[in-house]
Amino acid sequence: MNKELLLKNLRTVPDFPIPGILFFDVTTLFKDAECLKELEDELYELYKDKGITKVVGIESRGFVMGAVLAARLGAGFIPARKPGKLPAETIQESFAKEYGTDTIEIHKDAITEDDVVLIHDDLLATGGTAKAAYNLVKKFNPKEVLVNFIIEITNLNGREIFAEGVDISALIEVEE
Amino acid sequence: MNKELLLKNLRTVPDFPIPGILFFDVTTLFKDAECLKELEDELYELYKDKGITKVVGIESRGFVMGAVLAARLGAGFIPARKPGKLPAETIQESFAKEYGTDTIEIHKDAITEDDVVLIHDDLLATGGTAKAAYNLVKKFNPKEVLVNFIIEITNLNGREIFAEGVDISALIEVEE
Repeated sequence: MNKELLLKNLRTVPDFPIPGILFFDVTTLFKDAECLKELEDELYELYKDKGITKVVGIESRGFVMGAVLAARLGAGFIPARKPGKLPAETIQESFAKEYGTDTIEIHKDAITEDDVVLIHDDLLATGGTAKAAYNLVKKFNPKEVLVNFIIEITNLNGREIFAEGVDISALIEVEE
Repeated sequence: MNKELLLKNLRTVPDFPIPGILFFDVTTLFKDAECLKELEDELYELYKDKGITKVVGIESRGFVMGAVLAARLGAGFIPARKPGKLPAETIQESFAKEYGTDTIEIHKDAITEDDVVLIHDDLLATGGTAKAAYNLVKKFNPKEVLVNFIIEITNLNGREIFAEGVDISALIEVEE
């Protein structure tokens, strides 16, 4: 894997969206055709033999490589969205944020018990949103649920929020 | 082109997001692996010989096939987003909505004068957002700007908002 290519092209933005946060900006990976191809190929290699039938992308940066990977795997793509964006009946999951709670939802007819589901987002930080997506997908009772990120901020220990044995992977590891 | 497959799988939702609007829901195309592949193949056939170097996807349903097509074409993918979502310096374009105005933006370093840019969104209705995206991309002075939608609501005449000669296409045409 060409981790250097990805790390070289990843932009970091200090104090975004709020002071004190170092933001890892994947748009500089997506805009570069060579990086986009590298991301696609690496994700495909990781998941080509896992029997994935649906890829869930978390709104909205997770839509990008989630959709690319779904198409490459011959799977379907499912958006996990904030409330009020999906037009048909949904199943929801709420989760605690630093201040208050947040909710994500998936269309009720999007996942069946025959599916093997990969949840994808661009970044694993503290893991709150991804864990909510995991709990939400589990409500559909699919055969298996796996979790993937492009970037993992290892010193925020987001992995620890998941139960042991959950298949979690990230293409590149960084520290904040 | 298997237009029947796409039309059969496209969901319509009456009165969403507000009463009187018939919503064309592309998520039922994305979730079906065969439809997703069909969308990818049809878009690739349309644009494979156009020299596209960047695909701009409009937030956030335009991210899905925009990213898939960018990867397939060997181009880069650029998100056009609502204000405050992109972390680095941006160029903006505002446009009138039914009530008030709206703004979209693209990172300032996302497009160069050497690029041939395809703008993609899921749906062409009255065309306000897509036209703003078109005006915004033109500010970067790229070689060429093309525009694509999965669905065109033909009776809303969204095409007429664009200047004559702009390369605009849609995979399927519907009426509201």
